Amino acid sequence: MASLHPFDPITPGEIQLATGIVQAAFQGIPLRYKKIDIQEPIKKEVVPFIEAERLGKPLPPRPTRLLQVLFHRLDNGAFYKALLNADTRSVISAKELPKDIQASVDPDELIEVEQLCLNHPAVQAEIAKLQLPPGATVCNDPWIYGTDDPKETRRLFQCYMYIVATDHPQNNHYSTPCKFSPVFDALKQELVRMDYLPGGADAQTTETQPWKPVETIQYAHDLLQEPLRTDLKPYIVQQPHGPSFNVQGNVVSWQKWRFHVGFNSREGLVIHNLTYDGRSVFYRLSVSEMTVPYGDPRAPYHRKQAFDVGDVGFGITANQLSLGCGCLGHIKYFDGYRADSKGNPVHLPNVICLHEQDNGLQHKHTNYRTNAATVVRNRQLVVQMICTVANYEYIFAFIFDQAANIELEVRATGILSTVPFDNQDPGTTVPWGINVGPGVMAPYHQHMFSFRMDPALDGFQNTVYYEDSVPMPEDDTNNPYLVGYTTEQTVLKTSGTAETSVDRHRVFKIRNDAHINPITYKPIAYKLQTAPSQMLLASPRSFGAKRAAFATKPIWVTKYQDDELFAAGEFTNQSKASQGVEKWIQRQDAVENEDIVLWHTFGLTHNPRIEDFPVMPMERISVMLKPDGFFTSNPALDVPQSAQSFNRSTLHQPTCCKL
Amino acid sequence: MASLHPFDPITPGEIQLATGIVQAAFQGIPLRYKKIDIQEPIKKEVVPFIEAERLGKPLPPRPTRLLQVLFHRLDNGAFYKALLNADTRSVISAKELPKDIQASVDPDELIEVEQLCLNHPAVQAEIAKLQLPPGATVCNDPWIYGTDDPKETRRLFQCYMYIVATDHPQNNHYSTPCKFSPVFDALKQELVRMDYLPGGADAQTTETQPWKPVETIQYAHDLLQEPLRTDLKPYIVQQPHGPSFNVQGNVVSWQKWRFHVGFNSREGLVIHNLTYDGRSVFYRLSVSEMTVPYGDPRAPYHRKQAFDVGDVGFGITANQLSLGCGCLGHIKYFDGYRADSKGNPVHLPNVICLHEQDNGLQHKHTNYRTNAATVVRNRQLVVQMICTVANYEYIFAFIFDQAANIELEVRATGILSTVPFDNQDPGTTVPWGINVGPGVMAPYHQHMFSFRMDPALDGFQNTVYYEDSVPMPEDDTNNPYLVGYTTEQTVLKTSGTAETSVDRHRVFKIRNDAHINPITYKPIAYKLQTAPSQMLLASPRSFGAKRAAFATKPIWVTKYQDDELFAAGEFTNQSKASQGVEKWIQRQDAVENEDIVLWHTFGLTHNPRIEDFPVMPMERISVMLKPDGFFTSNPALDVPQSAQSFNRSTLHQPTCCKL
Repeated sequence: MASLHPFDPITPGEIQLATGIVQAAFQGIPLRYKKIDIQEPIKKEVVPFIEAERLGKPLPPRPTRLLQVLFHRLDNGAFYKALLNADTRSVISAKELPKDIQASVDPDELIEVEQLCLNHPAVQAEIAKLQLPPGATVCNDPWIYGTDDPKETRRLFQCYMYIVATDHPQNNHYSTPCKFSPVFDALKQELVRMDYLPGGADAQTTETQPWKPVETIQYAHDLLQEPLRTDLKPYIVQQPHGPSFNVQGNVVSWQKWRFHVGFNSREGLVIHNLTYDGRSVFYRLSVSEMTVPYGDPRAPYHRKQAFDVGDVGFGITANQLSLGCGCLGHIKYFDGYRADSKGNPVHLPNVICLHEQDNGLQHKHTNYRTNAATVVRNRQLVVQMICTVANYEYIFAFIFDQAANIELEVRATGILSTVPFDNQDPGTTVPWGINVGPGVMAPYHQHMFSFRMDPALDGFQNTVYYEDSVPMPEDDTNNPYLVGYTTEQTVLKTSGTAETSVDRHRVFKIRNDAHINPITYKPIAYKLQTAPSQMLLASPRSFGAKRAAFATKPIWVTKYQDDELFAAGEFTNQSKASQGVEKWIQRQDAVENEDIVLWHTFGLTHNPRIEDFPVMPMERISVMLKPDGFFTSNPALDVPQSAQSFNRSTLHQPTCCKL
Repeated sequence: MASLHPFDPITPGEIQLATGIVQAAFQGIPLRYKKIDIQEPIKKEVVPFIEAERLGKPLPPRPTRLLQVLFHRLDNGAFYKALLNADTRSVISAKELPKDIQASVDPDELIEVEQLCLNHPAVQAEIAKLQLPPGATVCNDPWIYGTDDPKETRRLFQCYMYIVATDHPQNNHYSTPCKFSPVFDALKQELVRMDYLPGGADAQTTETQPWKPVETIQYAHDLLQEPLRTDLKPYIVQQPHGPSFNVQGNVVSWQKWRFHVGFNSREGLVIHNLTYDGRSVFYRLSVSEMTVPYGDPRAPYHRKQAFDVGDVGFGITANQLSLGCGCLGHIKYFDGYRADSKGNPVHLPNVICLHEQDNGLQHKHTNYRTNAATVVRNRQLVVQMICTVANYEYIFAFIFDQAANIELEVRATGILSTVPFDNQDPGTTVPWGINVGPGVMAPYHQHMFSFRMDPALDGFQNTVYYEDSVPMPEDDTNNPYLVGYTTEQTVLKTSGTAETSVDRHRVFKIRNDAHINPITYKPIAYKLQTAPSQMLLASPRSFGAKRAAFATKPIWVTKYQDDELFAAGEFTNQSKASQGVEKWIQRQDAVENEDIVLWHTFGLTHNPRIEDFPVMPMERISVMLKPDGFFTSNPALDVPQSAQSFNRSTLHQPTCCKL
């Protein structure tokens, strides 16, 4: 493993190594593994290494390869975190964590809880009361149990139950939710309580009644009642000379960009050590956390607040992609590995895809006197993963272009999380959701993402500031015609937060004060084009807000520290309060010309449309990072002209002539 | 011409007809034509006609075909507007307009003013003072003369002068601005005044001095000092079975959408009579106006405020496109016609293009239990025009998709409008612009667009309202866990304005109260996903703001009236004040369940980056219209599965094996 790069994802051999080391340290004790993964390497060890790489100098010693193992002791239920040195094959530390800390869900556990639920006599008794017609069965989605009791230390799952009306692998059970919902202790494997769900427009619940069959609203093509469209013609992307990218291991080079594709079970895709034309730009980019709180105020729905990164993990929920589905053109796939509950490596083929796309025009100018035009198309490189978190899908893409822009694009799709809703009085609606089918309602919710940016603009000491556009004072000398406007800069000198502002056209920038642009006379910089979003709607006094402090402010700046990767803290499952950015800013660190991290919270207040059911047309949000005085001119000037000889488009001939 | 559809653009025959009718009415008087175009047909005549078309019923009488002619009498300089009935070949009205009303610029006039300027002895005297090196010449961009004097009635142009250092058809003269700027009266063809431009960081001007040669920052590929990139491989879109669209005349059908492609010299591309699956959606969509005020407070820059629709026109500045430049794949082009100053038709080939594009995934869901996935790609139909307004380029696209979404995408590119800037003290900067090269500065400015939406959601009586997402009160009964949130609706009952609000996640919707969705029990609706933007920065007391009232509020709702098409009024060139939306709302019309128009002002506060020079990587803004309860489920459910047999992607093979 000596040849592994510090940013390489974990290998199956490392998983086996970790299992061996830990099992040796806990001789004879049965263990259940929750996570075996790389531990982010220590930055101060990595920087000299990647700087030597970048500058083509002799490499210093390789940073220590660290592994992280989370596991339960099955003899006493204790939850441990161990840190291993893979180079020396030794344990650095192994400590038991407090009782109220819960690990994230792992895929084996999810299946176990599902089965535990379905096989439980109390659940079967409820199912019997439904008096289902022949062929209909029941399934369940085990849900993370959002905190509502500060003293709770059990490992709980709330199982939402659904009727499966059709034996089809894509039956949409979310269309037919049941009105009972058992809660299980996953460690003790026992039923904690049977919850009953509100059946109508208020919070009232009833005993389970026989099911009155309703139509299932299906999305699968072979379950649709209407025929498919037949008039969509093929659209084929051909790259006869191959792609413009080059991949060596996990290192991608494309159009002056170079970066390392990282993968871990929690964040999934990570971009490491991003450079442009040999200049350092970002040390690390990732989607650090997200939370999805629901707005339906009724029990038990107040506990629906998923942290899809911390509670589950985008790496372990990443789809295994295949040719022709997610991308067009020439596709490179990257694989990943995770550990199962026994500590064995599990191969995750094709969890990240890489391809080029054409995004229309990048720049054009026609000199109207001569009619001579320069036209350059916008070729992009897309690095993408698609995560299925039970009902929902997220498509995350880092998109790079030739003008040195970086985009984080998020697409939300999949199926709405639904609840039962009897509207026996036709016309009944609720103020926190929308009826999407017979007997089914989709509550309002928010999707709040945390984009973590660890900048390295021409070096590792950077500064964040914001710039507002403001009218000049109405002054006869300096602004006599009252049209002047200017900008105001505010430097974030101490770790803290900031607000976005549409009214002031607030733009956040990251700069390096030690590197002055020779033409603008200002420090080289990148700007963050934020996605100004409504912040968390839950009351600051709610557990929902306390657990997701990152989602209460759009901008956070912290001083870099190893181990501060996740906006809501390391352990979010059943957390009582966040242990993330809101703690780290309290250090009041100086963050001007320091090694800093910029965190942007953005999201969707998603009050569903009925058009989002039974499967949701993607909702797209985008955040951009753009050079702003980083170069001395448009960096895409040297992209060749768009030409028919290259693009080979075809001309539409009027069909009237043929008629 | 009896076979023309009410929404068809003007034909060359109609231009000749109009010239003949007008010249006959003004026998013997020399005329100069400013504009000959269709007049928007009278809506109450059109609606029965298109409704009969839509429903396949016998057609009522065709609406009167109206033509509009703007012209100057050359004997007395009077400016006239005539309205003609093309069916009866007669003048409906012809009236002289007040002296302070100026027509828009026409291409012939632009060239005339350019030549007038270059040939003028006073200009030549200034050029001589530059003592240019051999081979260097001077050119000028005649600029619309923004109002600063309420008594001005002359037809003025401010000519900005540039040094042309290289005899190349794409020399970037914007890199080398001169410091003198003559003002001409275009009707009297005379010099009004020689303005001198500030040369440094303050408003001070100086006599013209010999030019100290500096490098021109070039964008043309064969003028670049560095070689072009050689590692970009072809990316070819093939549609072997042809496009999925069908075009008959100007009517386009694609994936349940049907609309009429309109074109006129002022707005360029217009979408008329948009239906989805036979249901009426929008009567008319267009970019109604835009204004570009500059933030440099110094004379004469305070007069830089272009109205690119009203002062010039997107139809007459639309690029004539060619295969392989603007779009990939299978392209249909539409032509247009305008009149020249003598009243002759001018053919404008390929001013609008139509093509399909792939926009990644539209929806996906994987049932994690069975691993069965539904994956549907997002095919789009793009109708696009590209306008060159002197230095700048705008790319406007209406984009339709299979989930019944409509997007207006604007891309700003082209070249920054620059001013001379001596920074003899290296390090000098100004607070209202940025240095982009030696001796050249790019001032801050705004681009404010008005998107005019004339809705017809299942009929012509519609209502606009907005919906905010707000926390529920902290109430032990209804919101005991403090996580509940709901929506508040505010109906715009009277013509007026509204603000956007990110903090309240404000969404604007258009609904038809007479059509209730059978599942949601709410009126069928579309929502407008606004582009919340900083509004006009100029003081309300400035001419800049008075002339562009539409740019002071993001949302306007008016009751439909024929002739109310342009947000800042019909005549914007040298206007003293707007005669547009701000006047029309004052009627205090009832707009609930009425024939209404929704106007959305959005834009860019564009404080240039040096990366925007010498040609600007496109800046993209997008506004979406999405069905919201218009259907009873996702309208793209019936789009076939994305499959490799259809998409024919290729797999990247590691190159390491070949090395």
